[in-house]
Amino acid sequence: MLRITLAMCLVCTVNHVAQADEAVPWRYVLTSTEGDAEAGDFFVSAESLGIETDEPFSVRRETLHGGRQEGCELITIYTNQLQITLVPTRGMSILSVQAGDIWLGWDSPIDEVVHPSYINLDSRGGLGWIEGFNELMVRCGLEFAGHPGTDVFTTNTGDPGEMDLTLHGKIGNIPASRVEVRIQQVPPYRITLSGLVSERVFFGPKLDMNSELSVTPGESAWSITDTVTNDSTAEQEFEMIYHTNFGTNDAGAGLLAEGSRVAVATRSVTPMNAHSAGNLDDWTTYAGPTPGFIEDVYLLDPIANESGNAVAALVNADQTASVAMRWSTEELPYFTLWKNTTALADGYVTGLEPGTCYPYNRRIERAAGRLPVLAAGESRSITVDFSVQSDAAAVESVLDEITELQDGVDTDLVREPPVVPE
Amino acid sequence: MLRITLAMCLVCTVNHVAQADEAVPWRYVLTSTEGDAEAGDFFVSAESLGIETDEPFSVRRETLHGGRQEGCELITIYTNQLQITLVPTRGMSILSVQAGDIWLGWDSPIDEVVHPSYINLDSRGGLGWIEGFNELMVRCGLEFAGHPGTDVFTTNTGDPGEMDLTLHGKIGNIPASRVEVRIQQVPPYRITLSGLVSERVFFGPKLDMNSELSVTPGESAWSITDTVTNDSTAEQEFEMIYHTNFGTNDAGAGLLAEGSRVAVATRSVTPMNAHSAGNLDDWTTYAGPTPGFIEDVYLLDPIANESGNAVAALVNADQTASVAMRWSTEELPYFTLWKNTTALADGYVTGLEPGTCYPYNRRIERAAGRLPVLAAGESRSITVDFSVQSDAAAVESVLDEITELQDGVDTDLVREPPVVPE
Amino acid sequence: MLRITLAMCLVCTVNHVAQADEAVPWRYVLTSTEGDAEAGDFFVSAESLGIETDEPFSVRRETLHGGRQEGCELITIYTNQLQITLVPTRGMSILSVQAGDIWLGWDSPIDEVVHPSYINLDSRGGLGWIEGFNELMVRCGLEFAGHPGTDVFTTNTGDPGEMDLTLHGKIGNIPASRVEVRIQQVPPYRITLSGLVSERVFFGPKLDMNSELSVTPGESAWSITDTVTNDSTAEQEFEMIYHTNFGTNDAGAGLLAEGSRVAVATRSVTPMNAHSAGNLDDWTTYAGPTPGFIEDVYLLDPIANESGNAVAALVNADQTASVAMRWSTEELPYFTLWKNTTALADGYVTGLEPGTCYPYNRRIERAAGRLPVLAAGESRSITVDFSVQSDAAAVESVLDEITELQDGVDTDLVREPPVVPE
Repeated sequence: MLRITLAMCLVCTVNHVAQADEAVPWRYVLTSTEGDAEAGDFFVSAESLGIETDEPFSVRRETLHGGRQEGCELITIYTNQLQITLVPTRGMSILSVQAGDIWLGWDSPIDEVVHPSYINLDSRGGLGWIEGFNELMVRCGLEFAGHPGTDVFTTNTGDPGEMDLTLHGKIGNIPASRVEVRIQQVPPYRITLSGLVSERVFFGPKLDMNSELSVTPGESAWSITDTVTNDSTAEQEFEMIYHTNFGTNDAGAGLLAEGSRVAVATRSVTPMNAHSAGNLDDWTTYAGPTPGFIEDVYLLDPIANESGNAVAALVNADQTASVAMRWSTEELPYFTLWKNTTALADGYVTGLEPGTCYPYNRRIERAAGRLPVLAAGESRSITVDFSVQSDAAAVESVLDEITELQDGVDTDLVREPPVVPE
Repeated sequence: MLRITLAMCLVCTVNHVAQADEAVPWRYVLTSTEGDAEAGDFFVSAESLGIETDEPFSVRRETLHGGRQEGCELITIYTNQLQITLVPTRGMSILSVQAGDIWLGWDSPIDEVVHPSYINLDSRGGLGWIEGFNELMVRCGLEFAGHPGTDVFTTNTGDPGEMDLTLHGKIGNIPASRVEVRIQQVPPYRITLSGLVSERVFFGPKLDMNSELSVTPGESAWSITDTVTNDSTAEQEFEMIYHTNFGTNDAGAGLLAEGSRVAVATRSVTPMNAHSAGNLDDWTTYAGPTPGFIEDVYLLDPIANESGNAVAALVNADQTASVAMRWSTEELPYFTLWKNTTALADGYVTGLEPGTCYPYNRRIERAAGRLPVLAAGESRSITVDFSVQSDAAAVESVLDEITELQDGVDTDLVREPPVVPE
Repeated sequence: MLRITLAMCLVCTVNHVAQADEAVPWRYVLTSTEGDAEAGDFFVSAESLGIETDEPFSVRRETLHGGRQEGCELITIYTNQLQITLVPTRGMSILSVQAGDIWLGWDSPIDEVVHPSYINLDSRGGLGWIEGFNELMVRCGLEFAGHPGTDVFTTNTGDPGEMDLTLHGKIGNIPASRVEVRIQQVPPYRITLSGLVSERVFFGPKLDMNSELSVTPGESAWSITDTVTNDSTAEQEFEMIYHTNFGTNDAGAGLLAEGSRVAVATRSVTPMNAHSAGNLDDWTTYAGPTPGFIEDVYLLDPIANESGNAVAALVNADQTASVAMRWSTEELPYFTLWKNTTALADGYVTGLEPGTCYPYNRRIERAAGRLPVLAAGESRSITVDFSVQSDAAAVESVLDEITELQDGVDTDLVREPPVVPE
């Protein structure tokens, strides 16, 4: 430890941001509404911190240019195992991850990282969100998620009013107000990227999301913990769906291909509409890119282990690679599976989407009792863990875990979509 | 004077912007669509101008970063008595004023100075304006102000069409096209910040507002004069409400608290809706922060003095501090009082709002005969003077002035809200 | 040639972008989403390239500031004959052209080059487009052009949905993703400015437009070739109208004035509405600026020559100056004439508008069989050539050409506007 501490002291001499205290992390404020942020490009690395380690790392910020991505910022965390790119300008979404040879992401027809100032969520009858949709993981929420359409709200006069909700809400198109990189000053030098995204309306929700993505050099895993706080004295409904999307890219990288399959222990699988009902029996498997394919959407009821955690995995065709997501079913009771195996050019992708709700319009979720409410001042934390398996044994281990969760429970394949109010 | 003139000449040598002519002001173009503006941060002060004075002053421009305030500019005028912060990016609104110990502003749940490119006025059924609402003074207008809802307009074919008006119009979310600082070259070195805000639609209004805020070092007062010009050959309706908002902040500063009261000589007070009617008898006094409080809105008919000017004041509970607004009732005949004494976290605030109209939808204002029309090429100027009283004697003097205006006129407390067309 | 080649080699030494190969052009990437673009102001000229020529040229990029034009980029091509200003930030529109003494453009009441982030196309009942409308040539399209109003589309579930189209579509308010300047390395040093504008929606069109504007030093002519590609595996409807607008400016420059006239060989002229029907007999001539004038719109059926090309010209009153447009009627079968001879302050202008369609709402164009469809992966190129005539002989030559095209064909003046579905 002595050598490292000396190295850190040396860094402190030349870099006033770094702090030579093991108890607190190195901390870099990249974005701030308080004026204490670092401007321009940013780069920090194990080397720049004077750390000698077998698991080097770095964090870099860059700004995109051209077209509708002008001014969008990206932050990328690099380790030997992972390259994780986030978009603070778009609500701290994860754009893509490279995990060794395995690429996680999808090749959306939206090939730019669209700056929110070019997005009109209300356009196309409330479908404007899809003009910027291309992330590996984008949050849907916070005031509302799911389908567009009319819902009631309370106006400034205390009277009920009606408003048109927009697809998947606003949080994915709000730039972060504060972004920090924190790096533990002791091995394993855990890296945390935190972003505060604020979704506030004067007469309406005052919801803040503090998002933290953490990764430990040496591991093929990362974790997201989001804390949503109701900063009002009135209670506030909220919704959150982790719209996590996997496809394949031009180079053929990616976990989704013909024969890939999804694994998740679930009490039931319910088609969201009649079209999806027709393909229900094949819900776990994927077709190859299919021009003209119409999306299938299934609503699942995941089974948790004794710690309360569920797991879902997307596995490649020969079961040599997979990605697993783990979360608490108390925090995220519902799981939506989106299968959109259309042509590559049209967005060949599947979504594994744990959420506080299903993606119906909020009025339907409210009526179904799937709409959480935050009391005045209340915070709620949600954690989703991601890990990548890059050999058959690791994949099998995840599949065994899921099989065990399902053990003794028959999955009810519901043949008819739910009847929902108009 | 000789010494000062020499100093100014010296300044001219090193700063080509300054002009050594007493007859014209120093002039700095901060923003311009003509390409003659100064870029980046800006600072000028009595000292930088070589002025020796007991009443120093300065003007500073800064650019905000982070979240939805990325790129918003602020301009602050500093004197010994006042610190006035304007937002040229948001229609020359006044964000807040510090007058000695007295802070004027409010602690909106919208805690960022939101850049207009993030505001969709049409969202939330035309209530998008409230996603950026946090100023001490924001203008509502110019094509329309007041409540959202359908109104008629003339289309490009000359036929009548319908459009959905949006809450409080566009002017508060249009960045200024030209911003100038002018400083008198002779004592008392009056400072004027002018901003041109242009609200133009090809088939529609061609309205330009030239706004001037003036402050004299040594005084606890400032003045706004807006000149609205119809740059079309067709006549053009317009509306303007000076939505001036006072609250209190986390540190307890601010004029609004339990026991504060509003004073304005008025022929009548009419509740805008049934809810407000219930609290009519308490229209002059304020509650403390009250979670769940529903706004009360009252429509007043201010009494002017023989010069044609009305005055309204907000007075703190122990009558040791107040802010007074003065305006011509010919220019601004109507006055709306907005009482929104909700919890601090939800926006504890009151609005004192002289206007060309009340805040009903424009179609209602038109039907009521409260909608001014500018002839082709016509300009109309509106002045609102603000002053701060910081001791009991000064407060009493303002209250006496208001009492005298009311003298001999009974205020008609109208018990029922007006009947307005659907 | 040797001297020039040496000069070019010298340039290569000091400017690594230039390439000393006659077979390929000098190429400068000004904007790119790939990160290979030149930042900041840009300037290249015959002189900076070391070319000795009697026809010098230059290309300059600048960035606009102030008001709603903050951040908008302009690119201007200068030759001895022409000064052509394009707006890559606004879909590669042409803002204006100066051709010797002849100014082409118009003095829109929208006097700023509005950045798309300030435009809400859905506002004003789908008329938001007109808040930025001031170009000499702006494209209407690509997913839809023409009047706002409801049309059907296919939703993500494969079901039919309805959406509100917005006036003249999106392409004119999308910033270019890639902008290149290419200059031939051999005389006549033809200059091409190419811009890729991408109009993509996840569930919706994946249309890319590669636009090329070419000009040859020494000529009073320029050419636009746009290639629209459907990058989906599904077929895709598209529309394109070249909304080319001529007026006059404060200084009296411009081809439009009382007595100006439009010349185009056409099988028929049909008024778009009853108002225009009343002025049908005067369809070729223009009034001077007329306050309160209501637009007239005529639908034409242009006659092509044996090469398939049509020509339209706007001629000044004394027939000493004109601008001519030439295009293939296979590419652009329809021609709309917009006469908006209102007051100068309100936008005195006429539009000569070849298109794939007329400017009705897309549902009407579809029903009328005027809606082209691109197959999966299909590209379609459209070329419009512009030339300026600056003396009576040149004007007469163009008029003779048009007269010859019309020869033997009576123009059918249709007295009633078409009956179109509601």
